[in-house]
Amino acid sequence: MYILTIGSHSSLQILHGAKKEGFKTALVTPEKRVKFYKQFAFIDEVYGYKNEDKAVDYINDFANNGILIPHGSLVEYIGPERVNKIKTKIFGNRNLFEWEANQKKKMSLLKSAKIKIPEQFENPEDVDRLVIIKLPGAKGGKGYFIARNKSEAKEGLNKLLEQKMIKSIDEVIIQEYVIGVPMYFQFFNSIILNRLEIMGIDIRYETNIDGLRRLPPDIKIDPTLVVIGNIPAVARESLLPTVYEYGENFANTVKELVPPGMIGPFCLESVVTDQGDIVVFEFSGRIVAGTNLYVNGSPYSWLYWDEPMSVGRRIGREIKLAINSNKLDQVLT
Amino acid sequence: MYILTIGSHSSLQILHGAKKEGFKTALVTPEKRVKFYKQFAFIDEVYGYKNEDKAVDYINDFANNGILIPHGSLVEYIGPERVNKIKTKIFGNRNLFEWEANQKKKMSLLKSAKIKIPEQFENPEDVDRLVIIKLPGAKGGKGYFIARNKSEAKEGLNKLLEQKMIKSIDEVIIQEYVIGVPMYFQFFNSIILNRLEIMGIDIRYETNIDGLRRLPPDIKIDPTLVVIGNIPAVARESLLPTVYEYGENFANTVKELVPPGMIGPFCLESVVTDQGDIVVFEFSGRIVAGTNLYVNGSPYSWLYWDEPMSVGRRIGREIKLAINSNKLDQVLT
Amino acid sequence: MYILTIGSHSSLQILHGAKKEGFKTALVTPEKRVKFYKQFAFIDEVYGYKNEDKAVDYINDFANNGILIPHGSLVEYIGPERVNKIKTKIFGNRNLFEWEANQKKKMSLLKSAKIKIPEQFENPEDVDRLVIIKLPGAKGGKGYFIARNKSEAKEGLNKLLEQKMIKSIDEVIIQEYVIGVPMYFQFFNSIILNRLEIMGIDIRYETNIDGLRRLPPDIKIDPTLVVIGNIPAVARESLLPTVYEYGENFANTVKELVPPGMIGPFCLESVVTDQGDIVVFEFSGRIVAGTNLYVNGSPYSWLYWDEPMSVGRRIGREIKLAINSNKLDQVLT
Repeated sequence: MYILTIGSHSSLQILHGAKKEGFKTALVTPEKRVKFYKQFAFIDEVYGYKNEDKAVDYINDFANNGILIPHGSLVEYIGPERVNKIKTKIFGNRNLFEWEANQKKKMSLLKSAKIKIPEQFENPEDVDRLVIIKLPGAKGGKGYFIARNKSEAKEGLNKLLEQKMIKSIDEVIIQEYVIGVPMYFQFFNSIILNRLEIMGIDIRYETNIDGLRRLPPDIKIDPTLVVIGNIPAVARESLLPTVYEYGENFANTVKELVPPGMIGPFCLESVVTDQGDIVVFEFSGRIVAGTNLYVNGSPYSWLYWDEPMSVGRRIGREIKLAINSNKLDQVLT
Repeated sequence: MYILTIGSHSSLQILHGAKKEGFKTALVTPEKRVKFYKQFAFIDEVYGYKNEDKAVDYINDFANNGILIPHGSLVEYIGPERVNKIKTKIFGNRNLFEWEANQKKKMSLLKSAKIKIPEQFENPEDVDRLVIIKLPGAKGGKGYFIARNKSEAKEGLNKLLEQKMIKSIDEVIIQEYVIGVPMYFQFFNSIILNRLEIMGIDIRYETNIDGLRRLPPDIKIDPTLVVIGNIPAVARESLLPTVYEYGENFANTVKELVPPGMIGPFCLESVVTDQGDIVVFEFSGRIVAGTNLYVNGSPYSWLYWDEPMSVGRRIGREIKLAINSNKLDQVLT
Repeated sequence: MYILTIGSHSSLQILHGAKKEGFKTALVTPEKRVKFYKQFAFIDEVYGYKNEDKAVDYINDFANNGILIPHGSLVEYIGPERVNKIKTKIFGNRNLFEWEANQKKKMSLLKSAKIKIPEQFENPEDVDRLVIIKLPGAKGGKGYFIARNKSEAKEGLNKLLEQKMIKSIDEVIIQEYVIGVPMYFQFFNSIILNRLEIMGIDIRYETNIDGLRRLPPDIKIDPTLVVIGNIPAVARESLLPTVYEYGENFANTVKELVPPGMIGPFCLESVVTDQGDIVVFEFSGRIVAGTNLYVNGSPYSWLYWDEPMSVGRRIGREIKLAINSNKLDQVLT
């Protein structure tokens, strides 16, 4: 059996973990990255594609003997229409993709899960506080901007329209900017072990905003929020029971609203306020790049597993456990 | 033999480590957290308490067969009077609790140890530079504020009095605000191996202050300093000899002033200036939450131990070594 | 066979790794640090020196049975003239030292490697944008400053001349200040395995600049850039192919311009912009202190090695592999 994925995002971790769990591994990646990925001994086969249709072909070559692990770059790289043409089974719930792509459905799902979320504004006219305006898709925060009021919001949106970064205002999400610090909570919902595990916590490292503080304060540069890496963190232990409850609520709600439910890794992207509130402003229904920090396990995964357990390896382990207990169909879609 | 602790702060790490060293483990925690803690296989018994008196009862049930590991939330959760009613033996020096609770005794202890500390001001009237004003107890920095001068200091203190966060100005500590970067040095003083170990370094992650830099600089929000997590770090190696000397001086001074001395983990909370000075503005005479980063060992613990050694596990190891060498009474109070 | 180094910078990691690979270990260090280093069981012999000539003597005592591992403090501690008197073989390419010491040769080497670098200004008169001005030698960023324009650049340089931190303007490097976030990419170029490995990524922790953001924004303090530690990070996986290509280009160029080429660890100190550009503003042709984070392996080293592999240990491993394959002369100079 092969485990395969697209060469980007968290593919090294995924295939490294898959190999540790005894699988054959394959990678489908833009042609110019083939050389880079070929250096890793745990990747058995590397397929370089010239165009996205060819990528789908390569993936579908494994329809009978492979499992595709989706990550944040899958839809971004090959597009939602082509993803629909994938015949190879996917680990996880492919029905969640459209919820992820639509910021409004995304927030409604969190709301249904009784998770604290920021105030949403349908229309820039309604903005009455500090807001952040976000573009659709997983583009690493490109184009995101902060507006202090109605007029700044409208001005920024017009700029996005002019630059053709969006086609309509309906595409964006206008969200209350919650004052606090970001913290991203990584989970793994195990169908086979019937339990939820906290897998780690990270903070995003964003350019240029995380560099601006290094400049004298009188130098004014427009902040941008492009994610280019991650930094590890742990949370106050007294926050964890709430974090865990959020995770359980999320998994339960996905089960209800998006059958067959939450399979494997997900993330609740949050801000923690000085009142101790955990406000979730986004979720990812699959492995996030912040887990790349924990190739050898995280301060949390070590509490569940007496061996190094990355999320990538955890996926491989779940598939192995599913195979061994004849439940593979429960973790694939 | 049981190792037990209060369910918060660093309890996961403590019991995870205790289990690795072969102990039975028990947790006493507010009732609503029972479910959260029950998921961890390394916790043998979880006791949920409805009120703090009951917490003491649960702890005292282990008077004959258990050792309580104190951490920063023990006194905070059950109060100093109830801590005095604990009959179960405590790993560490319980006489240090009152030194920790009293900021002025705290600073005098550091001073006796010939550790560089910030200038202290007895009276807001004396303030002649940038200061930070700190409230008593381990409340994660809640209510702390920075004042640029005498009048800001007085104004802030009046606000705390009005909000009843303090009863008298004597409760707070007014400390020179040292310009530099924070670095928290974690130690373990081993009575049994007769040596001091550097266990790790962390940086606190504080809301909202660590989030404010993400805002455009013209948006003014009052900074708050509530600790909600920790980030790992290492120090320039050339700083370590001084760090180590500070640790030794501290342990020697505690031995002299607070018998039976420093047993096990402690932390020197510091600021490092651009002159290379290490200025210690606080200490913790027990395990700190920043060690939660290092469940699988830290860049420093790996230099002493050829196996993953968290501070939690190190405590379990010290107790095991003490039992095996018939010196258990030397590490308990 | 002994592996030895100077007691500072990354010496703990180097000797810890050497011991794991089966070597005897020795440390040569300023006398006052002897006590600190003697606590570590993996250091077999510690030699305290009173003056730098004596340091060279101690090092040369191992001319027949030792290998010296150079790091960023070697030249800084004993001076370039004395380094020339070292008879003990050095792991790495000692011809690179003079390229490292000369900022202009440094940048020209990067340019030859077709690595994106910041614009350089020969003369403060030419400054037409935000620049950073850097002093020679590895002094942890001491004296570095940012200038917004020609006049600030000239003013700052005059101050350095007055304070005798430099003798002539020719000593400094005037570099475009690239807006983005810093990221330091650590590599190991293996002669024996004939491959390049990504060993880790770090971010520097600098005083006072990383502390200033904790102050209310209306408090103006001159920022300083003294490195006092490091924080771990991972990069977006889609950046890695370029990072790796840069590393390969660098190794190839060193081979061409500075025979016998790049042996072992090096680092490309970079800024990543919001356009996804990786701009390298400096390199280190030897182990960097940021690798001290990864005594037990990094998120990247675990992809190459199925065991904990610090850069220190990797050096020991390379020497062992070289001895076993009779190629020791290929990794020493």
